[in-house]
Amino acid sequence: MPLSLGELAVRFGCELRGDPDTRIERVATLANADDRALAFLANPRYRAQLGATRAAAVVLSEQDAGDCPAALLLCANPYATYARIAALLHPPRPLSAGVHPTALVAAGAHIDPSAEVGAYTCIGERASIGARALVGPHCRLAEQVSLADDVRLVAGVTLGPGVQIGARTVLQPGVVIGADGFGFAPEKGAWLKVPQVGSVRVGADVEIGANTTIDRGAIEDTVIEEGVKLDNLIMIAHNVRIGAHTAIAACTGISGSATVGRRCMIGGAVGIAGHISIGDDVVITGKSSVTHSITSAGVYSSTIPIEDARTWRRLVARFKRSGQFEDRLRRLERAAGMKSGPETPEEDHD
Amino acid sequence: MPLSLGELAVRFGCELRGDPDTRIERVATLANADDRALAFLANPRYRAQLGATRAAAVVLSEQDAGDCPAALLLCANPYATYARIAALLHPPRPLSAGVHPTALVAAGAHIDPSAEVGAYTCIGERASIGARALVGPHCRLAEQVSLADDVRLVAGVTLGPGVQIGARTVLQPGVVIGADGFGFAPEKGAWLKVPQVGSVRVGADVEIGANTTIDRGAIEDTVIEEGVKLDNLIMIAHNVRIGAHTAIAACTGISGSATVGRRCMIGGAVGIAGHISIGDDVVITGKSSVTHSITSAGVYSSTIPIEDARTWRRLVARFKRSGQFEDRLRRLERAAGMKSGPETPEEDHD
Amino acid sequence: MPLSLGELAVRFGCELRGDPDTRIERVATLANADDRALAFLANPRYRAQLGATRAAAVVLSEQDAGDCPAALLLCANPYATYARIAALLHPPRPLSAGVHPTALVAAGAHIDPSAEVGAYTCIGERASIGARALVGPHCRLAEQVSLADDVRLVAGVTLGPGVQIGARTVLQPGVVIGADGFGFAPEKGAWLKVPQVGSVRVGADVEIGANTTIDRGAIEDTVIEEGVKLDNLIMIAHNVRIGAHTAIAACTGISGSATVGRRCMIGGAVGIAGHISIGDDVVITGKSSVTHSITSAGVYSSTIPIEDARTWRRLVARFKRSGQFEDRLRRLERAAGMKSGPETPEEDHD
Repeated sequence: MPLSLGELAVRFGCELRGDPDTRIERVATLANADDRALAFLANPRYRAQLGATRAAAVVLSEQDAGDCPAALLLCANPYATYARIAALLHPPRPLSAGVHPTALVAAGAHIDPSAEVGAYTCIGERASIGARALVGPHCRLAEQVSLADDVRLVAGVTLGPGVQIGARTVLQPGVVIGADGFGFAPEKGAWLKVPQVGSVRVGADVEIGANTTIDRGAIEDTVIEEGVKLDNLIMIAHNVRIGAHTAIAACTGISGSATVGRRCMIGGAVGIAGHISIGDDVVITGKSSVTHSITSAGVYSSTIPIEDARTWRRLVARFKRSGQFEDRLRRLERAAGMKSGPETPEEDHD
Repeated sequence: MPLSLGELAVRFGCELRGDPDTRIERVATLANADDRALAFLANPRYRAQLGATRAAAVVLSEQDAGDCPAALLLCANPYATYARIAALLHPPRPLSAGVHPTALVAAGAHIDPSAEVGAYTCIGERASIGARALVGPHCRLAEQVSLADDVRLVAGVTLGPGVQIGARTVLQPGVVIGADGFGFAPEKGAWLKVPQVGSVRVGADVEIGANTTIDRGAIEDTVIEEGVKLDNLIMIAHNVRIGAHTAIAACTGISGSATVGRRCMIGGAVGIAGHISIGDDVVITGKSSVTHSITSAGVYSSTIPIEDARTWRRLVARFKRSGQFEDRLRRLERAAGMKSGPETPEEDHD
Repeated sequence: MPLSLGELAVRFGCELRGDPDTRIERVATLANADDRALAFLANPRYRAQLGATRAAAVVLSEQDAGDCPAALLLCANPYATYARIAALLHPPRPLSAGVHPTALVAAGAHIDPSAEVGAYTCIGERASIGARALVGPHCRLAEQVSLADDVRLVAGVTLGPGVQIGARTVLQPGVVIGADGFGFAPEKGAWLKVPQVGSVRVGADVEIGANTTIDRGAIEDTVIEEGVKLDNLIMIAHNVRIGAHTAIAACTGISGSATVGRRCMIGGAVGIAGHISIGDDVVITGKSSVTHSITSAGVYSSTIPIEDARTWRRLVARFKRSGQFEDRLRRLERAAGMKSGPETPEEDHD
């Protein structure tokens, strides 16, 4: 679906510097675009590529509009404008409304006639599938699952009993929502399973990455609010609540009953302890361990950057004998007739 | 299936303070229970909610039996008693014995007539499915898989050749047991695949969380003993052995040929190195790195709690120049005519 | 398929010490082999088991050929030779060429007649399946997926539009390749999805472990070069490139647009930041955080080994008050009339 630069400028409110009749067929990177392609510049690390690009046009902001052989589409938020143009040029496959003959739909389930249900998918009793929803192949929706309008389950998605998915939410392949939470009562040296009778509510405009798992609540529901973006291989335990528009990178795990605020940005492979609370607008760097609640907005970290292994071994050895350093400091201070540094209560009572 | 408080008290050996004819329909939290619901108190963090609960009854221990408007069921282990009552009030869906017409069962497989085999499931040659076992939809059981009585495979579970699952064990959706272990021999700058000819044996009363993977042994079997509880997205490598009644939280990875003792508690996102051994009754805090064997019971950690990012950057910078501190200490000691602190052999020879 | 030691010695260029007519039926460990089994010794940790083995024969190198009751097959790389013999003794199930009647293959897809396509698998338009490829049950291949000759998709594998898989590559169950990358543009406090129009190219002789995910590129392709070995539950984000013959252990996450060189060895649960570059022949120890580019070959680490929890708490407390140590050092140096140690610019300006 080629589009002219003139149409794009009008549609997305850009200032156009170039020929409005130039036709764009696809998006491409600055480095590899050709004269049918549109590129964008949002990250300064790619600015050096601007001068040599062969793109037909580049989306960028006024302050980057320097020396560039291509036509320019100027706007305030080039990355968002690029996203909108890319969606227009590369639209998703149109739905093929109806239920595939191999899909198994329980008699009491409701499927909107405009929805597409794919091959070999199983839909349980009293499930409800909204308008224009896509349920790809090999999905399994247990009883009373509810999908709002325009939901997309790409393929191989599992939704447990009573799981609710909000409008326009996208679930990538392998996602499991509503499996039992990890609840076991200790009794005589063994573990007794605690029935997990809550479910999961996922808001509108959420995206959940491949093979991510969100467990059902122990009693009440696990909740993912609207606009949340979860990457791949994330674990959300039972009774967690994630606030609206929070984004979480891959491999992060959030333990039971933790709450995360709105508009947070959580890096990859972060661990968040159970029963703690993280406020709004908190940023956590990748691989950090969140062991206590965070009440103020801001950036938090416990990321330990790599060193070459020999340096690292020395650093660790020194870290592990830090008690000796402290003793030596104290001895020196005593010899110099100086007052010793304060000691923490933890150290005193250990 | 409503039950009276009198029945519950008798059945579970509780002391009842309240009307034995009160009928309970479901479980709920202290905060949100109504007069048909039973709540419980096991975690002191929720004790403050006791006075205001509208629950019909609360399960708790004698020492928590304070001021509470609800009827009380007193017992020694309220969490375990709650779990048993919840299982009674919220029983799992009853099995629908038989093989779904779309399931593909090899001619030489044995399916107990009381078992349920779900839609689109594939069962290989010489597989054996025990009494009252549930094999949900979209499972694939390779040849010679054996499920003992009352096993439950919720949905979309993959079991490789020869995998054995003990009685009453539950596998959540997306679990993969018996994929090839990560075995490759280096040869001339490339990797040669080492056939993985062992399998996996999982004991009775085990639970395995969504999308967790357990690899088959290289030569002998990978072994998960009875009563083990594994959360979601855990990786168990080939030839690992996990001792009975050990519980492991999500996102933890255990490398090849490691052994973990009985009744251990391993936090989330822990990494355990290969070929090491962890004894019985060991507790590891979340995100720790277990790089060497542990012979004594106890609690172990290398969790680094977050700080605000500015403080954290200073701490890391100081850590990385700890060698300068040591030099400065030594200079001061020399100036004061004091003997310098001991140095580790590692430091000496580096 | 039993084989004689004489045949094995000739076929794999080993020196045989023992009876060439001895027949071998299977492989086994040194500890548990019987007189029909072949064992191997490559890891010195098992050398002590050599004297007591009841194996019919042992594959090992000249320098380990000590006191052993079994016949010996001597060679330069015993682990690789063992791998080849094991593959001969335990061959994979032979293919059953053809498309299972329940598989759904789009009219425009091309399936080589020697390939096997399993039950309930769905193959999209213009997909192409090479000679002797195995596509196990419950796989979903979107439009234009291409599998080269001898590829093996064990079961339940998802390949998104346009994904290309090289010859002999093996994908374990639950692998998802070509799901959308995690690309969202911030706009007015919410996230706008950026269409992911690239795909994924996987080279020849790659192995990808269970439930691992590799996202499609944002504009150009994510690339896994030939001979790469990926363990289970690994996350490869969009636009990543992994160099040939690199091996990565389980639970590792690689962020968007990072590049990893050739012949690297990345431990388990490592986190690699986005947009950085790791050179060839780099080794990273398990659980490290790679936050910056690495240009030189070598070993790198930020692994923090566990301690008992009481020691660990003291170490962390001391680490967190390391600023006080520095102050005390400075005071002592001033009192002794010595020049204070250098301070880092970061510290100065903080």
